[in-house]
Amino acid sequence: MITVTIIGAGNVASHLYRAFNDAKDVTVKQWYNRTYSTISSYANEVDCIDDLNQLKYADIYIMAVSDDSSASLSRALPFENRLVAHTSGSVSIHDLDKKNQRAVFYPLQTFSKDAELDFSEIPICIEVTEKENLQFMKDLAEALGCTPYKITTEQRQTLHLSAVFVNNFTNQLYRIAHEISDAKSINFDILKPLIMETARKVQHMSPYMAQTGPAKRNDKKTIKRHLKLLENEEHKAIYELLTASIKKTHGQR
Amino acid sequence: MITVTIIGAGNVASHLYRAFNDAKDVTVKQWYNRTYSTISSYANEVDCIDDLNQLKYADIYIMAVSDDSSASLSRALPFENRLVAHTSGSVSIHDLDKKNQRAVFYPLQTFSKDAELDFSEIPICIEVTEKENLQFMKDLAEALGCTPYKITTEQRQTLHLSAVFVNNFTNQLYRIAHEISDAKSINFDILKPLIMETARKVQHMSPYMAQTGPAKRNDKKTIKRHLKLLENEEHKAIYELLTASIKKTHGQR
Repeated sequence: MITVTIIGAGNVASHLYRAFNDAKDVTVKQWYNRTYSTISSYANEVDCIDDLNQLKYADIYIMAVSDDSSASLSRALPFENRLVAHTSGSVSIHDLDKKNQRAVFYPLQTFSKDAELDFSEIPICIEVTEKENLQFMKDLAEALGCTPYKITTEQRQTLHLSAVFVNNFTNQLYRIAHEISDAKSINFDILKPLIMETARKVQHMSPYMAQTGPAKRNDKKTIKRHLKLLENEEHKAIYELLTASIKKTHGQR
Repeated sequence: MITVTIIGAGNVASHLYRAFNDAKDVTVKQWYNRTYSTISSYANEVDCIDDLNQLKYADIYIMAVSDDSSASLSRALPFENRLVAHTSGSVSIHDLDKKNQRAVFYPLQTFSKDAELDFSEIPICIEVTEKENLQFMKDLAEALGCTPYKITTEQRQTLHLSAVFVNNFTNQLYRIAHEISDAKSINFDILKPLIMETARKVQHMSPYMAQTGPAKRNDKKTIKRHLKLLENEEHKAIYELLTASIKKTHGQR
């Protein structure tokens, strides 16, 4: 049985708490948050604390806190030579205080408070400062049903950047489509199957091969008509930039 | 039993042929393409022709051809007062020759030759010039298991534009993430669950509510670090433009 203590109570921390709590080979020893009221509703199922000095021994302390607080919080931990991991895509493993053994446990997924998540599909990017902890970190990921990937700091930071493209930026394109279609009283539901299929297609085909549309085939008439339809200058600029990018990728320039 | 004749042999035509052929309430009467060899392998299951004068009576003629050829091809049809539909997101219904009854049967989906598609999830956008054909067009969509939506020309053109955002542009963001991660020897598979979840999330939550990430929370440090990581000027420009767009949407400017 692996014992885990969760530190923090944001989206990632909450999802990890629930996942570890459900995993049969893991026990959540304690849940720390500096504001007790945020986690108090879980006090009947786990030892909830708001004082670092109450931290008991656990096989691993997982800090799912904001990027800015990782370093100072790791210094404030009142013990040494235990295993401490952060869950950030961008914070360096060396930002954690070296009085403890350090690791990264970065789940590459988008976490919203209200969205249910199937952990078995989440890749966990792992780094360790002590080689002998690698297998333990992998076991921990697998205890959640996740796939562990050992990566370097540079790779993790590049993944975090890539995630901004495929998640935040993609979501903003959905948002713009929502705005454009709302303005003409179009039900956004009509676009949902296309959104799903676009994502599904690249699960077994490269994005390069999956591309279609006016930019790829350099269909100037349609592009011109679309630009005329767009009333918002910002939407126009995005249309032009991404059209140019597709043309370049597919040798239409 | 509805009889359908397919005109054209591109991606949309081929997928529609297969879907109509599988539908129990539809018979594909003929399949026309100006180049016979493209469809000849289907000659054992359907009457394949390359001469418009061989067209027999069908309840509907579905022209799934390039936008530029719809008008001239509709004029070349050697009959009058039958039902003729095109499948384009951008061609006007009035571009079809008015000697026939006109309709639009626009499946809002991305069609690739090799990707299998579940038609039951495809919205079909419908327009007619003669009101009395509306129910028939809806029945035809439903015969494929699709959901029909009656829309106006302006709405269809706006949907086509929105589709470019959620499909072509989104796919280009996947492509850029593929390039960025490839350059650091990262397995693109790690990003695939995030791609799926990003699409899944907006099936039951607005894109506005689904947004997360450094741009939304105006995390200047991470944005700066990401821009430094990006080596390609075009990728940088896309990062900056979409970050500004997210900030504006979420009141971070």
